[in-house]
Amino acid sequence: MIITVTPNAALDVTYEVEELKPHHSHRVRAVHQRAGGKGVNVASVLALMGYEVVAMGFAGGLAGAQIQADLEMRGVRHCLIDCDGESRRTINVVSARHGDATIFNEPGPEVSSARWRELKENLAALVDATATTAVVLSGSLPRGVVEDGYAEMIALCRGLGAITIIDTSGAPLLSALSAGPDLVKPNLAEVAAAVGIPDPVGGAAELRRSGARDLVISAGRDGLMWLPTQGPGWRGRLAEPLRGNPTGAGDAAVAALAAGMAAGEPPEKMVQAAVAWSAAAVLQPVAGHVDPTDVNRLYHQVLMEEVP
Amino acid sequence: MIITVTPNAALDVTYEVEELKPHHSHRVRAVHQRAGGKGVNVASVLALMGYEVVAMGFAGGLAGAQIQADLEMRGVRHCLIDCDGESRRTINVVSARHGDATIFNEPGPEVSSARWRELKENLAALVDATATTAVVLSGSLPRGVVEDGYAEMIALCRGLGAITIIDTSGAPLLSALSAGPDLVKPNLAEVAAAVGIPDPVGGAAELRRSGARDLVISAGRDGLMWLPTQGPGWRGRLAEPLRGNPTGAGDAAVAALAAGMAAGEPPEKMVQAAVAWSAAAVLQPVAGHVDPTDVNRLYHQVLMEEVP
Repeated sequence: MIITVTPNAALDVTYEVEELKPHHSHRVRAVHQRAGGKGVNVASVLALMGYEVVAMGFAGGLAGAQIQADLEMRGVRHCLIDCDGESRRTINVVSARHGDATIFNEPGPEVSSARWRELKENLAALVDATATTAVVLSGSLPRGVVEDGYAEMIALCRGLGAITIIDTSGAPLLSALSAGPDLVKPNLAEVAAAVGIPDPVGGAAELRRSGARDLVISAGRDGLMWLPTQGPGWRGRLAEPLRGNPTGAGDAAVAALAAGMAAGEPPEKMVQAAVAWSAAAVLQPVAGHVDPTDVNRLYHQVLMEEVP
Repeated sequence: MIITVTPNAALDVTYEVEELKPHHSHRVRAVHQRAGGKGVNVASVLALMGYEVVAMGFAGGLAGAQIQADLEMRGVRHCLIDCDGESRRTINVVSARHGDATIFNEPGPEVSSARWRELKENLAALVDATATTAVVLSGSLPRGVVEDGYAEMIALCRGLGAITIIDTSGAPLLSALSAGPDLVKPNLAEVAAAVGIPDPVGGAAELRRSGARDLVISAGRDGLMWLPTQGPGWRGRLAEPLRGNPTGAGDAAVAALAAGMAAGEPPEKMVQAAVAWSAAAVLQPVAGHVDPTDVNRLYHQVLMEEVP
């Protein structure tokens, strides 16, 4: 089984408006609400692709209840716990006249150390009880959680024999590296923000000095690079990037990598799958969704090359 | 007792951001949530001024639960009923760099005819059981409710001997007038929108042709005019308009008028009170709030003049 952990799960709200005009009043034509947060998206994609997966993390207050209700409606198994505050909402204002969304990210709840300990204990119990093979740690840490929160979870999972994959940024990323996660998946901007080097190979070397082992770096239309500790790397991409919704494409790539790591597949296959799942996510209007038919079709269109 | 009816009650959410930039992502620094909707604000102001008042209307789903919880916390009595959908939220994005808010109004729930009948029956029962003297009907009608929804309520209240005060706009206003409410309080923009005459005296004459009786027209910094069916009118205003938050100032004026009508006070006193309550509301950062000390102080500063 695979577990995804989303300490800062969100309720993603989309507002459709005619045109966004600052300092004006807008009639919202339609409202869509959906459970979100990077790890929630990873779990959703894995469930759609037929994998056994459980989404863990915090879901608090009425927004938290809406997150849980949406996951249940979508058939995504979850074990989200209360955090004594309202889960954050993200409001995405989409105007009919312009494609781009204007996004408002709520600060989210402050999580106590007792609640954080409870989440770690639940994670350990579930990994142990289900012989979980891979744990995905995704997204930001809520306010109140220590910076090395992910490092604690990585150590805990390793002790129980589970592989860890981490997808976060900034200080929580650097701290997590010191605990030696099995795979790190930053995008180029996150590499640059963490170590100040906006180049995949140079950035990877610097991240490795902080403790990273195998790395997958996503670079948008330039595809995905697997940069291992030893041996040759792999780059996968589509000949022509697809047009669509990039939100959640990275989460779909992480889902494919988790599935591949859990099954012990060779890196080349994992990269090929990650590019295909990610591209399939771009074709969907909402994050956390792929059509398995798209994934299978796109898999055979991925161009692979060795990185020396 | 006074009853306020808010068929389209809302959860007013305020987001504080540094600066609103369309098509960018924003970190929300603080989130405030508050029960809103014009009639809810009227009830809140009446409660703060020490009047016996009950807020009626619809509150549905999780947003509805938040509306009810906030009213309970504020000590505003309510009898809000379910409407089989999510109550609307209004998101007010306030940027630190500019004073003006950017507002997103959700469309709100669709209310069935059965639910509308239930609200009318509850209103009749409560007016009857408590010998209510005045009923305030405020704001827009939810989707699904017939245009003459307010006209039905006005007829019902008159049958039970209660005075009615209406504060709405557009088609529901014109339809309500045909039922002969005791007092109508549009602002100048609403008069212009309803009858195409952007002038208080001319607009009032036209509204009276549609069935209006006594009218109070609010004109922002030019104050408030009482234009009765018979006899002289009154105009009240402050020598210098106050700087502050105009949202909810009209609701505070309606609250004062409802209190005056319920007590059978002379029009001159009601106008003077309405200007004072309204000005006190401008001094508050949120709608639905006044400080009784401000009200008492401002009452003596209102300039009154007869309108021939």
